[in-house]
Amino acid sequence: MAAPKQFLDYVDANTDAFIHRLSEAVAIPSISGDAKRREDVMKMGRWLEAELNKFGVKTEQIPLGKQHTEGQVLDLPPAIVGRIGDDPKKKTILIYGHFDVQPAEVSDGWNTEPFQLVVDEKSGRMFGRGSTDDKGPIMGWLNVLEAHHKLGLSLPVNLRFCFEGMEESGSEGLDEFIASEVKKENSRFKGIDAVCISDNYWLNDRTPALTYGLRGLTYFNVIVSGPGADLHSGSFGGSVHEPMTALIALLGKLVTQDGRILIPGVYDGISTADESELELYQKLDFSVADLEAAVGGKIAVSDDKPTVIMARMRNPSLSIHGIEGAFSGVGAKTVIPATVGGKFSIRLVPPQKPDDIRAKVEKYLEAEFAKLNTKCKLKVEYLHGGIPWVADHRHWNYEAAKRATESVYLKSPDFTREGGSIPVTLSFAEHLGVNVLLLPMGRGNDGAHSTNEKLDKSNYIQGTKLLGSYLYEVGEITKA
Amino acid sequence: MAAPKQFLDYVDANTDAFIHRLSEAVAIPSISGDAKRREDVMKMGRWLEAELNKFGVKTEQIPLGKQHTEGQVLDLPPAIVGRIGDDPKKKTILIYGHFDVQPAEVSDGWNTEPFQLVVDEKSGRMFGRGSTDDKGPIMGWLNVLEAHHKLGLSLPVNLRFCFEGMEESGSEGLDEFIASEVKKENSRFKGIDAVCISDNYWLNDRTPALTYGLRGLTYFNVIVSGPGADLHSGSFGGSVHEPMTALIALLGKLVTQDGRILIPGVYDGISTADESELELYQKLDFSVADLEAAVGGKIAVSDDKPTVIMARMRNPSLSIHGIEGAFSGVGAKTVIPATVGGKFSIRLVPPQKPDDIRAKVEKYLEAEFAKLNTKCKLKVEYLHGGIPWVADHRHWNYEAAKRATESVYLKSPDFTREGGSIPVTLSFAEHLGVNVLLLPMGRGNDGAHSTNEKLDKSNYIQGTKLLGSYLYEVGEITKA
Repeated sequence: MAAPKQFLDYVDANTDAFIHRLSEAVAIPSISGDAKRREDVMKMGRWLEAELNKFGVKTEQIPLGKQHTEGQVLDLPPAIVGRIGDDPKKKTILIYGHFDVQPAEVSDGWNTEPFQLVVDEKSGRMFGRGSTDDKGPIMGWLNVLEAHHKLGLSLPVNLRFCFEGMEESGSEGLDEFIASEVKKENSRFKGIDAVCISDNYWLNDRTPALTYGLRGLTYFNVIVSGPGADLHSGSFGGSVHEPMTALIALLGKLVTQDGRILIPGVYDGISTADESELELYQKLDFSVADLEAAVGGKIAVSDDKPTVIMARMRNPSLSIHGIEGAFSGVGAKTVIPATVGGKFSIRLVPPQKPDDIRAKVEKYLEAEFAKLNTKCKLKVEYLHGGIPWVADHRHWNYEAAKRATESVYLKSPDFTREGGSIPVTLSFAEHLGVNVLLLPMGRGNDGAHSTNEKLDKSNYIQGTKLLGSYLYEVGEITKA
Repeated sequence: MAAPKQFLDYVDANTDAFIHRLSEAVAIPSISGDAKRREDVMKMGRWLEAELNKFGVKTEQIPLGKQHTEGQVLDLPPAIVGRIGDDPKKKTILIYGHFDVQPAEVSDGWNTEPFQLVVDEKSGRMFGRGSTDDKGPIMGWLNVLEAHHKLGLSLPVNLRFCFEGMEESGSEGLDEFIASEVKKENSRFKGIDAVCISDNYWLNDRTPALTYGLRGLTYFNVIVSGPGADLHSGSFGGSVHEPMTALIALLGKLVTQDGRILIPGVYDGISTADESELELYQKLDFSVADLEAAVGGKIAVSDDKPTVIMARMRNPSLSIHGIEGAFSGVGAKTVIPATVGGKFSIRLVPPQKPDDIRAKVEKYLEAEFAKLNTKCKLKVEYLHGGIPWVADHRHWNYEAAKRATESVYLKSPDFTREGGSIPVTLSFAEHLGVNVLLLPMGRGNDGAHSTNEKLDKSNYIQGTKLLGSYLYEVGEITKA
């Protein structure tokens, strides 16, 4: 065990104070997606900066520009960038986290006030918006800093921090900042050896995880138009080609019920899993029953564990999200919508590239649309895309996290890939060119983005130890 | 020409006063679909009743019960029922109209204040909500009554009136009233020989029309459900059966791009048009270009005039209206919706019956859904239905309207069927068991239910003459 007992004891002894810290953070409703809460996001940034300063971290607020939203022009919350330690003999780790949160209101279905941390001692769960996403992990780092500061211990690595307040709203401005910062001679990101991001979750609620892959994304809006305005189906139904009929037919050509994507060439270059890879998935602490419990329905694409796991993390997938412009209310409306946009996206895995997939999708949609022989018009809009990411999980950064997990949790972590995207991961991986580790604190059932978001008290306290231990393991491995 | 010159001259001489009458009616925003406007609907009813009384019509307000809407319980606007004339030697005609209107706000895209009648002298158009639907026609009847009252002329028929204030909101309460009223010994509807409804439009903007048929309707909500709550496509895309994928596949099996309905048995019993019927459609003053101008797009299902006309008025049609529960906003959202409801409806023609069509649709959807092999669940909801209607257009009621049209417009009317439904037509046809005539006042381009609804001044004034002349022609034909 690389972390000193002193540190671990301090964490145990200060559990209540650490929970109080989290409750202070949760109490600031730093919702980045709500213009009315922008000042709270700013306030949360200042609060975080003050905490960092208390424990010896030098900080700066980095302006990220303006945001045009809801008809207003708002200042983006500045990124909080910090540094502590400059020992050339130590590795330098960049820590990322975000201090903004998703919206939350009691009326959404919360059992408690979302911006008040409520600790249920019986279950050990701490409920509150941001508890697990991502204030808990940020507090974890603060807890580690406090312990070292109070105990007069020097940190085993040099630390750099990059905290943002717009993650839940597309990390606006951050990628540009990172891209331009790394090019500067005296870059704030100079000398970074690896990155650690704690902003995702265990695969389940039992076994810690390290995450080394994320899927990419391409998102499309398939627009079909016909009449000049919405029509009444009584007056015109039957006499005209209807955009919805064409759109439904087109969307029906994208994917089979069991998830096989029908766009030619979309699977090009994706390897088939060999025995050893299948074994990896077989060993993960995750079952088809876990999946069905998580989604709340017996709808797994297969009864075979590796098949389901691969469908989730190592294969591409296509989901149809909805239709813009059609009737979407309750009840009955006899409209023939004039222009309808079908939204779908494809999750990507290496070696898929968004631009290549985009070209294949557009070509396919145009060819299939032509076959429909409709007089309606097609326009394919590409809304956005992101490349998939896979890190080398045999890197010392992962090895350190693995050893830290084993020392704190007394079990080996699941090595996972995730189905979703965390764009900042790619920003750091691309611009810094170093290994990026995703080291989750919370469990798979925390309900990030959902109602009654929670973080288990044990994950918070053991997680604080994990983050600290990880730094010591980095120090130890890289010294050797 | 059966109508006396005195009457026709009075109409011409009182054009300004008649327009003023319409402007007073338009100024009352009697929106039945907006709870906040209910008092305006009531006010409009009282205004109408006072006008009727001025010209010798005895009226009653018929309570139609309560409405549960927007979490409130509101009184339904009473029907205004009236009578004038009891001459057993004369025919008795029931006149129907509705004094409520669709919602309208300048922000919807109106060029003028919707609840202020604006007369554009250059185009001869009178803009305002309700101008053509259905306040113009009601004012037409008031104008006829005024002329006879002021001139001391006795009406050529006995008149009965039934005006309602809920037509734009499903005619709530009216069918029940009619059904129970006709069973009473001293029914207010006793002795009625025929019905005249002026609440639809010419096929075009050139030629007057008489309408003798309406399509029926069956409306379905195809609900497909899977997970217990909406899922994130990043986390779960690929690993589960998705309701949207299944729903899109199912909706794709309903109808071809050119409108052929794929549900087995749905066309059972519908005759093929013979040469003489085709000739009828060929003679109508309506072209494929008219259709494409009306819908604002070159999307007609055929270049053949009778084919397009039949598609519109004598054949069934299926339209997909939209999806409830899926993502319908602008932009991109990576959701896997948990439960989605596809809304579609089928317009019916004789001899189709809603119950029979419903059974066929449900059977087909269940069979096709089973073939999908999805683990998602299907539930088919039947939202509502109405039988199609076709009247005998050789009846004296139609002959009178034809002669009146010829005398006022100096051309023969188009005999049309309409694609939509006007449920009260069926209520009168069924419960009274007499011939019902649809005698439109406005043109096909009036934009009822749309922004910038208008009634041409000439249609209003000539239409007033038409309504009066129709009564004289009824008197003359039935005397003979």
